[in-house]
Amino acid sequence: MNKTLAAKILDAHLVSGRLVAGEEIGIRIDQTLTQDSTGTMAYLQLEAMEIPRVKTKLSVAFVDHNTLQSGFENADDHLYIQTVAAKHGIVFSKPGNGICHQVQLERFSHPGWTLLGSDSHTPTGGGIGMLAIGAGGLDVAVAMAGGAYYLTMPKICQVELTGKLPAWAAAKDIILEVLRRLTVKGGVGRIFEYTGDGLAGLTVPERATITNMGAELGATTSLFPSDATTQAFLSALGRGADWLPLTADADAVYDETVTIRLDELEPLVALPHSPDNVVPVASVAGSKVDQVAIGSCTNSSYLDLSKVAKILAGKRVHPEVSLVIAPGSRQVLGMLADSGALSSLLRSGARILECACGPCIGMGQAPKSGGVSLRTFNRNFAGRSGTPDAKVYLCSPEVAAVSALTGKLSDPRDYGHPPVIDLNTPFVGDDNLLVFPPEQGQTVEVVRGPNIKPFPVAKQPPVTLTGAVLLKVGDNITTDHIMPSHAHLLPYRSNIPHLAKYCFSGVDADFPARALAQGGGLIVAGANYGQGSSREHAALAPLYLGVKGVIAQSFARIHRANLINFGILPLIFANPGDYDKLAQSDVLTIDALHTQVQKGELITAANTASGQEIPLRLVATSREKEIILAGGLLNFTRQTGGFRFS
Amino acid sequence: MNKTLAAKILDAHLVSGRLVAGEEIGIRIDQTLTQDSTGTMAYLQLEAMEIPRVKTKLSVAFVDHNTLQSGFENADDHLYIQTVAAKHGIVFSKPGNGICHQVQLERFSHPGWTLLGSDSHTPTGGGIGMLAIGAGGLDVAVAMAGGAYYLTMPKICQVELTGKLPAWAAAKDIILEVLRRLTVKGGVGRIFEYTGDGLAGLTVPERATITNMGAELGATTSLFPSDATTQAFLSALGRGADWLPLTADADAVYDETVTIRLDELEPLVALPHSPDNVVPVASVAGSKVDQVAIGSCTNSSYLDLSKVAKILAGKRVHPEVSLVIAPGSRQVLGMLADSGALSSLLRSGARILECACGPCIGMGQAPKSGGVSLRTFNRNFAGRSGTPDAKVYLCSPEVAAVSALTGKLSDPRDYGHPPVIDLNTPFVGDDNLLVFPPEQGQTVEVVRGPNIKPFPVAKQPPVTLTGAVLLKVGDNITTDHIMPSHAHLLPYRSNIPHLAKYCFSGVDADFPARALAQGGGLIVAGANYGQGSSREHAALAPLYLGVKGVIAQSFARIHRANLINFGILPLIFANPGDYDKLAQSDVLTIDALHTQVQKGELITAANTASGQEIPLRLVATSREKEIILAGGLLNFTRQTGGFRFS
Repeated sequence: MNKTLAAKILDAHLVSGRLVAGEEIGIRIDQTLTQDSTGTMAYLQLEAMEIPRVKTKLSVAFVDHNTLQSGFENADDHLYIQTVAAKHGIVFSKPGNGICHQVQLERFSHPGWTLLGSDSHTPTGGGIGMLAIGAGGLDVAVAMAGGAYYLTMPKICQVELTGKLPAWAAAKDIILEVLRRLTVKGGVGRIFEYTGDGLAGLTVPERATITNMGAELGATTSLFPSDATTQAFLSALGRGADWLPLTADADAVYDETVTIRLDELEPLVALPHSPDNVVPVASVAGSKVDQVAIGSCTNSSYLDLSKVAKILAGKRVHPEVSLVIAPGSRQVLGMLADSGALSSLLRSGARILECACGPCIGMGQAPKSGGVSLRTFNRNFAGRSGTPDAKVYLCSPEVAAVSALTGKLSDPRDYGHPPVIDLNTPFVGDDNLLVFPPEQGQTVEVVRGPNIKPFPVAKQPPVTLTGAVLLKVGDNITTDHIMPSHAHLLPYRSNIPHLAKYCFSGVDADFPARALAQGGGLIVAGANYGQGSSREHAALAPLYLGVKGVIAQSFARIHRANLINFGILPLIFANPGDYDKLAQSDVLTIDALHTQVQKGELITAANTASGQEIPLRLVATSREKEIILAGGLLNFTRQTGGFRFS
Repeated sequence: MNKTLAAKILDAHLVSGRLVAGEEIGIRIDQTLTQDSTGTMAYLQLEAMEIPRVKTKLSVAFVDHNTLQSGFENADDHLYIQTVAAKHGIVFSKPGNGICHQVQLERFSHPGWTLLGSDSHTPTGGGIGMLAIGAGGLDVAVAMAGGAYYLTMPKICQVELTGKLPAWAAAKDIILEVLRRLTVKGGVGRIFEYTGDGLAGLTVPERATITNMGAELGATTSLFPSDATTQAFLSALGRGADWLPLTADADAVYDETVTIRLDELEPLVALPHSPDNVVPVASVAGSKVDQVAIGSCTNSSYLDLSKVAKILAGKRVHPEVSLVIAPGSRQVLGMLADSGALSSLLRSGARILECACGPCIGMGQAPKSGGVSLRTFNRNFAGRSGTPDAKVYLCSPEVAAVSALTGKLSDPRDYGHPPVIDLNTPFVGDDNLLVFPPEQGQTVEVVRGPNIKPFPVAKQPPVTLTGAVLLKVGDNITTDHIMPSHAHLLPYRSNIPHLAKYCFSGVDADFPARALAQGGGLIVAGANYGQGSSREHAALAPLYLGVKGVIAQSFARIHRANLINFGILPLIFANPGDYDKLAQSDVLTIDALHTQVQKGELITAANTASGQEIPLRLVATSREKEIILAGGLLNFTRQTGGFRFS
């Protein structure tokens, strides 16, 4: 016995490897989800696998990112996703239906199942006892095609919650406290499993707030047990039959333990520009607020917004504040309308946005220059709001609502009694914006607008690799540096030729033209190359421009996996100091590349300019080496005749 | 006696001229409105006039265009407008409060008063018996400062409505029928005054739909009497005290008369790409529809959307249709929420957008490539939706709602009984997003973000004007050609230096650089130069680039007025064939310019390349000549020590 809940679910889905932290495992995936900014590419890749129908128990294609639709590109992407989903047996969630994680939780979540999603906040489903993991679009496409998902077995970290939250302290404050203690790097290589007597006081939407923002710890995922609270939530949704009890063994052994005494918590806020920059609201109360934004996949449930409505009812938003509220799903919005809460929100002066990601991903509602924006979201990185010098604070819906009334960052404990919401009334479902696929999809015509371009497919590496250093960059290059994303580029996520024109645009705007002119080559980088968002476009755009390898002092985990998936060599300097021996325009040659990749870690490159030999390392599992030699995961999948491990 | 209603209101406000069609008159303005895309510039101009507080009875600054807010520029513009409004005694309507014309109608309209608005659909107020005219931002700024508004006295055209609309025929069908008969040029130089026994069956929101879309006739404005229906509407709004009876004399003499037999109307639709391309819905029923959009200043009232809700209640929007609904005002949205209509809309699968112009001005919801979009809006020009090859149809809310359910353009008469709405329940007001100015505004700090740049001010013309032909264009150049506007340029309406980079970008992208390099010069054009939207940016950007005059075969009315307002000479070829004698890069010289302008119509230019003399005409009133010689309306206003005619 002595098993953790995470180990139980992993074990039930294991198709290769052992549950030993640090070893590679492969797991079977029950459900997948995509959103539109990663989904178009994932479905183009699925089509390339020539699988007539997905093999998961359920796959859902959401549209929640590009719902402003400032140009034809968005509507074309939506139609492509709708038709490719119908053809392949995938449920389509139309724009306006809500944020993927909120809808998935309310409508499709299933305790004990696995969910792989092409969005970093997929772990939201952990709130109901799913093992829900974010990944690159190609990994999700492989899972839809029936393939296993491979990951390094994480450590299992127990988060023990004891006691009960005091008045006005919220679930958001629990995860902010975890972030304060562990930092944004504290979750790397870990699954967080929540336990303790404190669970009893936390509803499923509150648990989902916590697992959602576990992504900000860098964690693989976060997980709550499936208990009586879970059963009550599913029953209210009319899905009581999907419930089953799931919990860790009483004597479960964890790799690490963190204890949070809920009684000691108070309203917290993350200051600009990092989610772990957490202090008590009381310590910064009184600062002027220009904008308050409530919603995002972290805090947009019926519970969250009903609380906000009770706080705002009969009052008026401060005249110098713009309060915007984006409900998490159409079901939430409909229930707010039926209960009268929506009227309270409107009458107070709140602006109601569509049920979508919206301001959280910089799609609209950019604050004024240098403005202070208080948000119930999960990320407050500089510039993410669309305004480079805006100052974004993260907090609970309660803190946000009270501050919208006062016009200042406010501690709600100075405000009176907290609102009480009854979650036991039955939820009214709303499936009118879900399109279920036909039984037979073969005859569905997939519609491809002019913005949907073929994606680049890697080739098997040459026997002798010769390439110039196209660009030399320093440490901590993010995927935002490599392939920027904002309201003006997001519509082109299915158009790599267009996106690639902006590859490294903030670092060296000449890079794309130079790479194309030279027929591709290599990138040289310092430490932690590819940190940040998981977007695989940071591998696809370089691939399109002919990049064959990146030589760095070290790589961020997900980007390294994406490079391998797209057949780009992630090489590490055997001697970090050799970074100084390479300059832009140097030409490197690696002889007998296939043999060197197969035989082991060490690979030698010759600098034809200086004549020097540079020893490099390829740290990869044997499966990863096969993928590289096959010319990427897609070719590997085709060559191996399907999915050996499923 | 025998006076028209228009003549009565004009007479009561006349400060100069005689009410003889074709003569220049000046009228006193009671109310003004601006929206954000024209408002920032209007307020920069108001500030330049150094008037501490507006002199109108009421001025309102709305934000309804740029509410997506994809960058800091929008929020900065909004804050500038909010603070400059507070300083100058202007009511500010925050983003999310609704479309200027709908809010003005519900909240501030006043039978018998004059309203000047920097938006072409200002005539919406004619539905309640206001004389409401659209104009350039500088004209509105002058009105706020207490100056008169000058226009050429229009003909008064009677539209006699007889009988009663049959089931499913709507107010929208009345104005579509007028457009079908008279075309988009049929209203130029005219005020349309509605009379007849058919008025009794038309509520104020229906009348406002008709006056709103009178703008598409090219009319100066449209006007309904203020009668018992008007009184009932104002009473329901709690504004019964603002009502007064107003009607034409029984023996009023009109310049022209059109008669519409309401009993003979049926549901109509305007086909792409012109509002006068009108046919019966029945004749084109059955075509597939990709998007249905309900809202805009034409059809977004509580009456309109309640009808739509009754049609959609308990049904489901077709899975291949995206139905978007943007209520006209927060008051409308709140009433829909309270009445349960909003729930019906949501449950059917409608997407509810913010109360704003939205898709009507290409701010979001661009259709798919080549898509068919059925809209309750007023304009369907090619490309205006944001999708160059989309096909936009214009229709009533009833036709739109039924078609959203069937997925095809549908005649609602095949559908059952039309919905019946009771408008006699009291309206619930909502002023929470209106910010009323302080009694004393002098100490208010006006906040200018980095996107708000000083606007160019014209100078007095030189004694000898010498300039090269910077650009030669053909016939029917629109203000869209001169200064393009779309979701990507609209945020820069307060930043002429940035906008000017895109001046004539679709015609000759090198024009801005060439104009700046040569220190300005002249533009040569064919007939009907400057047709289309009233935007004064089509004069401001050329002014910024140094354009001193435009020589054309003829000018569109509003653009000609804007050129004069900004000190640019609108010159006409005395011999139209001389157009062929001028080529790009030719240099022209006009000697003794001031004397020539003052003395009469004929002005002679010498082509220094060919030595030829080109006779030109300046057709302008003596007041307009004074404005040109003063270096534009702003300088003229300053020099004349205020407003002589007010």
